[in-house]
Amino acid sequence: MSEQIGELLAPYRLMMTPGPCSIDPRVYRALATPLVGHMDPWFTEMIGEVQVLLRRAFQTENRVTFPISASGSGGIEAAVVNPLEPGDEAIVCVNGNFSERMAVIASRVPTTTIHRVEAPWGRTVDPNDVRKAAKGRKIKFIGVCHGETSTGVISPIDDFRKVADEVGALLVVDAVATLCGTPLNVDRQKIDLCFSGTQKAISAPPGMSPITVGPRMEEVLRSRKTPVQSWYFDLTTTMNFWGKDRTYHHTPPISIVFALREALRIVFEEGLEAGWQRHRQNQLALVAGLEALGIELFVPNEKDRLPTVTSVYVPKGVEDGRVRRQLLDEFGIEIAGGIGPLKGKIWRIGLMGYVSQAKHILFFLAALEKVLLDQGLSVSPGAGVGAAIRVYSHAEPATVGHRS
Amino acid sequence: MSEQIGELLAPYRLMMTPGPCSIDPRVYRALATPLVGHMDPWFTEMIGEVQVLLRRAFQTENRVTFPISASGSGGIEAAVVNPLEPGDEAIVCVNGNFSERMAVIASRVPTTTIHRVEAPWGRTVDPNDVRKAAKGRKIKFIGVCHGETSTGVISPIDDFRKVADEVGALLVVDAVATLCGTPLNVDRQKIDLCFSGTQKAISAPPGMSPITVGPRMEEVLRSRKTPVQSWYFDLTTTMNFWGKDRTYHHTPPISIVFALREALRIVFEEGLEAGWQRHRQNQLALVAGLEALGIELFVPNEKDRLPTVTSVYVPKGVEDGRVRRQLLDEFGIEIAGGIGPLKGKIWRIGLMGYVSQAKHILFFLAALEKVLLDQGLSVSPGAGVGAAIRVYSHAEPATVGHRS
Repeated sequence: MSEQIGELLAPYRLMMTPGPCSIDPRVYRALATPLVGHMDPWFTEMIGEVQVLLRRAFQTENRVTFPISASGSGGIEAAVVNPLEPGDEAIVCVNGNFSERMAVIASRVPTTTIHRVEAPWGRTVDPNDVRKAAKGRKIKFIGVCHGETSTGVISPIDDFRKVADEVGALLVVDAVATLCGTPLNVDRQKIDLCFSGTQKAISAPPGMSPITVGPRMEEVLRSRKTPVQSWYFDLTTTMNFWGKDRTYHHTPPISIVFALREALRIVFEEGLEAGWQRHRQNQLALVAGLEALGIELFVPNEKDRLPTVTSVYVPKGVEDGRVRRQLLDEFGIEIAGGIGPLKGKIWRIGLMGYVSQAKHILFFLAALEKVLLDQGLSVSPGAGVGAAIRVYSHAEPATVGHRS
Repeated sequence: MSEQIGELLAPYRLMMTPGPCSIDPRVYRALATPLVGHMDPWFTEMIGEVQVLLRRAFQTENRVTFPISASGSGGIEAAVVNPLEPGDEAIVCVNGNFSERMAVIASRVPTTTIHRVEAPWGRTVDPNDVRKAAKGRKIKFIGVCHGETSTGVISPIDDFRKVADEVGALLVVDAVATLCGTPLNVDRQKIDLCFSGTQKAISAPPGMSPITVGPRMEEVLRSRKTPVQSWYFDLTTTMNFWGKDRTYHHTPPISIVFALREALRIVFEEGLEAGWQRHRQNQLALVAGLEALGIELFVPNEKDRLPTVTSVYVPKGVEDGRVRRQLLDEFGIEIAGGIGPLKGKIWRIGLMGYVSQAKHILFFLAALEKVLLDQGLSVSPGAGVGAAIRVYSHAEPATVGHRS
């Protein structure tokens, strides 16, 4: 018991990972707002504003729209355990770690059958394979991961909606990596349940998972014959706190709610569409810079590339961990390695929300050039930065940098 | 979409509820520390310190000790869904809303049998009733809520441990309202699984639930034949991130981890035992003040009174909501009303961690006297404050106020 734990002396990082990523200083100020009780009249009114902002982010008028008190993985659990009842069948499209996670979590609901329709990591699942898997079955929902952060792949939601309509299934979409970073319109795209995370393109700290439930899904939840197996993630009761009644269920992470509100305000100061354009523009600059350094993109088809996460093969001749460690130690930049079968093989560079700014990309490319050179790779110093600058030199200022 | 959401202008509250409660300004500073990634070498080392501090708080050497990424109710869910497998039987002692919650959550594990042993709200469950309920059965665990915040009752853990030993059951203890506020020693009291919340006597913001798992419970979890029904709360996998390997499971609420660390540092600057004494001393002053105003305590037996939460009957002649609303509007003080069957009948005054200071109690009693007078109750102004001062005038300074 004698070990002394001193003051918190955290390093300053530029977090260019697929989340959590660096966030706007304004959000820290909101985060540190002195607590107000979750049953306080001021708080129960204020969270109505958070719901208004979340509806704008999801582009929905869904009544049931609120942040779940858990990380994005908690959002996955809520999304699948709520619609499933004993005996149900569902399809999950699996093309990476997080879509795999959705299938695994759904499989923990007893006496249900979860059909996995797979694609190789780095590709999208073929909607026609889903159609085949659904044939002759009563499918409760089709689960799709919109942005697979483990690979940097974006999936075409509309194609899966079409299949879901044909087979009479609900559509559940994991938008953890895409909300506020890429085009997504829950109402127009007829998504029945969609969830995200606070720590990605919304650019708030991790800790909550915004979710929205469409009218058809709400009806399914209200008509359940058995209780949801998870009490904590039971939307049929949590939505009472976030509904008109504000009935106590559990204590939400109040500080994260404050931060989420501020982060969403920043999103709408810029505007959703302008933000999407900025994410795409900055990714193009990043990709140009990486390719100029001879680094190969992991996702072969350009249209499948997630604007918020760019994955590349670790160049031959350097060691994954050593490059990332030097970037961290020397420049304070964190990028992510691969997970699962891609461990040691790819890097994943996140450009989400606040991080998606020209100044970060130019700094990162310069740092990467220095590190690769140190590690013995023959790169031409300035080539990556130069290629990115050429992309930016033709771009509208608003699409390049931060809104402030 | 036209509604303007302005800057966050939060009122300043003194939160004298059973949590979340007001916290030390130092903790806000830690909370607002710029994020560092959860897989960053600095972070994975730093959380080892948080674990050291949590072991000190729980008074344990348990290897598996870490904060779960959810509120205290998430802690309840983790505590019961992890040990239970199909066909298992368990006993939950029910004497209030949160022990009831434990029974409800456990009952959602399919094909298990949860025996409820009840006591009236405001009393403790009789350990002998538990003994009888266990007779002739194979009981996996006995669940007890150490501090029932819905009633202000503390339960005698050692008596339940004795019964658990007799019947060969594990002991699961909800210490959400007691950790760092009342004597609790996980190792000496042989508690097999114990959990708490960050927003109570630890005095950090809500958002995490510290948990500790003893060797016998760990063995039960490792020997499970079926996967835990909740993926998010699956201790058999989450403990790998908090174990030696720091294997990625989900993204923890990094900012809350920072705040928790700072809050625990403050706890140990004072010392656990000194803190327990302070909680008890301040409760005695509060009780003296309330009784001097003719307000009746809800928990009849003095030994059953939880030092962190004092519950009293709403005095005849005033209306619950109006008194609490005036305290809030005029003095910025939040106290809690009753829940469930006690709604409108009792007030619950929390003296947890940072809130348990003489200055808060004297201010609260003065404010309460003013409000009760305004609401037409015949109280003698100054009587409550005077009674509390008399208690304090004989007390050691360190037991009265904040450690700073």
